[in-house]
Amino acid sequence: MRSRTIFFISDGTGITAETLGLSLLAHFSGITFRQVRLPFTDSLEKARDFLPRVTAAQVEDGDRPILVMTIVNPEIRELFEKSGALCLDLFGTFIRPLAAEFGQVPAQAIGMARRIATEEYHDRIDAIHYSLGHDDGLTPNGLENAEVVLVGVSRSGKTPTSIYLAMQFGIRAANYPLIPEDLERMVLPGDLAQHRGKLFGLTIDPERLHRVRSERRPNSHYASLENCRKEVRDAENLMRRENIPWLDSSSRSVEEISTMILQQMKLT
Amino acid sequence: MRSRTIFFISDGTGITAETLGLSLLAHFSGITFRQVRLPFTDSLEKARDFLPRVTAAQVEDGDRPILVMTIVNPEIRELFEKSGALCLDLFGTFIRPLAAEFGQVPAQAIGMARRIATEEYHDRIDAIHYSLGHDDGLTPNGLENAEVVLVGVSRSGKTPTSIYLAMQFGIRAANYPLIPEDLERMVLPGDLAQHRGKLFGLTIDPERLHRVRSERRPNSHYASLENCRKEVRDAENLMRRENIPWLDSSSRSVEEISTMILQQMKLT
Repeated sequence: MRSRTIFFISDGTGITAETLGLSLLAHFSGITFRQVRLPFTDSLEKARDFLPRVTAAQVEDGDRPILVMTIVNPEIRELFEKSGALCLDLFGTFIRPLAAEFGQVPAQAIGMARRIATEEYHDRIDAIHYSLGHDDGLTPNGLENAEVVLVGVSRSGKTPTSIYLAMQFGIRAANYPLIPEDLERMVLPGDLAQHRGKLFGLTIDPERLHRVRSERRPNSHYASLENCRKEVRDAENLMRRENIPWLDSSSRSVEEISTMILQQMKLT
Repeated sequence: MRSRTIFFISDGTGITAETLGLSLLAHFSGITFRQVRLPFTDSLEKARDFLPRVTAAQVEDGDRPILVMTIVNPEIRELFEKSGALCLDLFGTFIRPLAAEFGQVPAQAIGMARRIATEEYHDRIDAIHYSLGHDDGLTPNGLENAEVVLVGVSRSGKTPTSIYLAMQFGIRAANYPLIPEDLERMVLPGDLAQHRGKLFGLTIDPERLHRVRSERRPNSHYASLENCRKEVRDAENLMRRENIPWLDSSSRSVEEISTMILQQMKLT
């Protein structure tokens, strides 16, 4: 199999370059990609320090490397463009049409740096602390401040989803397990019944749940396929009966699940 | 102030389009942007349903809207391109040079969808559970499985950073508070001393710490500027003495802090 090197070069963290770069590469097969992140490339000196790594990759692979760039300073971009690599220049390509559209000379502000001082950033950090403090039914106090309360059986994906909703979207997301006792009685715990309009359910394929739980507590009743089937069936019945919107987390990433919740709960 | 509408249109979550779009807009000033995310636009039918919202924005703003697109299907892209909006087509623009470079016809795989089944995705979810289970010194058990252990005074940014390291990079990040008792004695807690090579410190500007802590416990000794100054000074002295690498989280986003830690701890 051929091997190619891809550099994510940025004057900021490089996270945007990497995210877009990986979704572009997902369209191709039969090639192994060696990924190298070069963040904080915000001066010509640093760029010159990195250049030998770009040329070395060309020698090693026998093919030119691919550079995905989010760099504001045009001189730094030019330096890399002259390296012989295939350059995907995210800022250079799209800043120009925007500048023409707005009739402005673009400011040379670097990446995310300006996000830190904003109200929005502050809200996002608050949301992370909120979601952590309301993970796994830790406390019913303050549920009135939640924007969404995820419910589902243990290990149906509630925790990573709550955290992602907070981290990416600044949403205060609590989560609450549906435990066997609730499922036996077929009623929502009292704390939740008061917040019915904020509830969103996650369900999961029982076989997958069995595998996930078995990693944690092998050969337990908790992890047994039979028990997983019963809990999932009961939880889905309860959510149906209580008119709680829900989705199946089994074959979806936490990014997809979170986005679908935002859409269905009209949180954006 | 002028107002313009920007749509993030994707056949996946739209998170990539939004992230890049916002970092492009950060180069311009004096314009208010109304942001609209249109995720999961993966069929011509859905695209046709969204079109009226695009044309309505043009009427409302008096200027054409901006569309940032990550859409695999060229027919859907074409539909939006004909709408009269300014289209920034992230896939259309960069897939072509990559296809030429690799000598391949690109597959029409959608967005992140394929990430779910990978080992890497599994590791990332595991890392989230690990980091949550080792937040705020919850347990010294299993620290040998940590890839990094963040230390610092209460509210110096350890928790959001640990979670982000896990969520974005799949890094198992524990965090441990430096509490007044440790600082008095000027020694690392025994659990940490064993893992010295994994320790990374966060510090914070005392005035900022005072503001952050005051939101949580106003007028307390804990939040007083005097106490914040003392704790930060002692913590920095301890980290210096113990040769723990550290950085100041005050004016940095969680994305920046996490990327700097990866770099300095050579975790990528």
